[in-house]
Amino acid sequence: MIKTFLALAGKIVEKRDKENLKMSQQPVSKNIHWHHGKLTAEAREDKLKQKGAVIWFTGLSASGKSTVARELELALVENGKNAAVLDGDNIRHGLNKNLGFSPEDRTENIRRIGEVAKLFCETNVIAVTAFISPYRADRDLVRQLLPAGRFFEVLCDTPIEVCEQRDPKGLYKKARAGEIKDFTGISAPYEAPLNPELVLKCGTETLEESTRRVLQLLSEHGII
Amino acid sequence: MIKTFLALAGKIVEKRDKENLKMSQQPVSKNIHWHHGKLTAEAREDKLKQKGAVIWFTGLSASGKSTVARELELALVENGKNAAVLDGDNIRHGLNKNLGFSPEDRTENIRRIGEVAKLFCETNVIAVTAFISPYRADRDLVRQLLPAGRFFEVLCDTPIEVCEQRDPKGLYKKARAGEIKDFTGISAPYEAPLNPELVLKCGTETLEESTRRVLQLLSEHGII
Repeated sequence: MIKTFLALAGKIVEKRDKENLKMSQQPVSKNIHWHHGKLTAEAREDKLKQKGAVIWFTGLSASGKSTVARELELALVENGKNAAVLDGDNIRHGLNKNLGFSPEDRTENIRRIGEVAKLFCETNVIAVTAFISPYRADRDLVRQLLPAGRFFEVLCDTPIEVCEQRDPKGLYKKARAGEIKDFTGISAPYEAPLNPELVLKCGTETLEESTRRVLQLLSEHGII
Repeated sequence: MIKTFLALAGKIVEKRDKENLKMSQQPVSKNIHWHHGKLTAEAREDKLKQKGAVIWFTGLSASGKSTVARELELALVENGKNAAVLDGDNIRHGLNKNLGFSPEDRTENIRRIGEVAKLFCETNVIAVTAFISPYRADRDLVRQLLPAGRFFEVLCDTPIEVCEQRDPKGLYKKARAGEIKDFTGISAPYEAPLNPELVLKCGTETLEESTRRVLQLLSEHGII
């Protein structure tokens, strides 16, 4: 009885191995089918079940841009929506590592980020950018790159006193001491948006409140 | 009877309107929940059910890079995988519109594309790049930007005679006539990869064969 069982089991294993071998010799790509033709933006949205957009945070240093941006990315990805933060961490050490902080370089910095955000948007990703981006003209250029209804300018409207008190990297202190030149809000201008899609009060709202308000904005505009 | 029906219908409409109003007052963002904390690369892959990668096509002008790249993008997106082509069309008119064709500008061109491809890869998108990228050192720099097993160099190995016969944009003709300087394969070098992940014979294989071979490569490496 046991012998019969073992013989049978052996045959089953042998058969399964043969089938596995047969399967591994079958190129997986044979199972992938597609229709030739042009891939339209509509077809992309339909197949991937996701719309692209750009959420452009702007505000003073330490106003809360990166913190809300990262929390928003987390909330979106946890709910199956592809979102990606672009901020100093991944841009200034990579794509824009050959740029400084002169007015021309700041403008080129924002231009390149805008172009990358546009590529993300076209790729059905929600790009979440977190840069001071102090010049109105630079931000407006990015807005013009994108289709209507896909660019959301979000002002982190935190009083400079609050930002300066937070000062997580000690930059305000250095700027006040004259060790950093052209520091936004101290020795360089910040041009607040005239008609942002949303104004966050990151000095008084909780992080969760701010994040939910951006999610609500995206929901109202049919992005999520 | 009709009167009763109309009254009833009116009440139903009124009730529905009230419910709609109630619903529209309910912020959609209330339904979105997330866990605070850092979003790791593993969590992203898990939630989005997709791995990022870079498929780097290289080869002479008219060797078939863009054609296979677009077909690959189509096949991946139709099967629910987010993929995006980066090529001259969306890069030279956007991010890199301030670059020319000098050796330094060519190098900066590939460097920026590499950095963008890396951002795509980190965002769980399969970046499919289609640039001549004639210099081995430039391509190797991009390879070094990416984690092991996420960069796939694919050579479109089409004989120059075939490329020159195709000449869809009349560029070879102009290069032979001396109207275009530094034309890859005619008056500028093409350094073929020494160890590409895949060599496509785009001069003899069909488009579908080439595309399936790249899909098979991605499957074997666990990307799809």
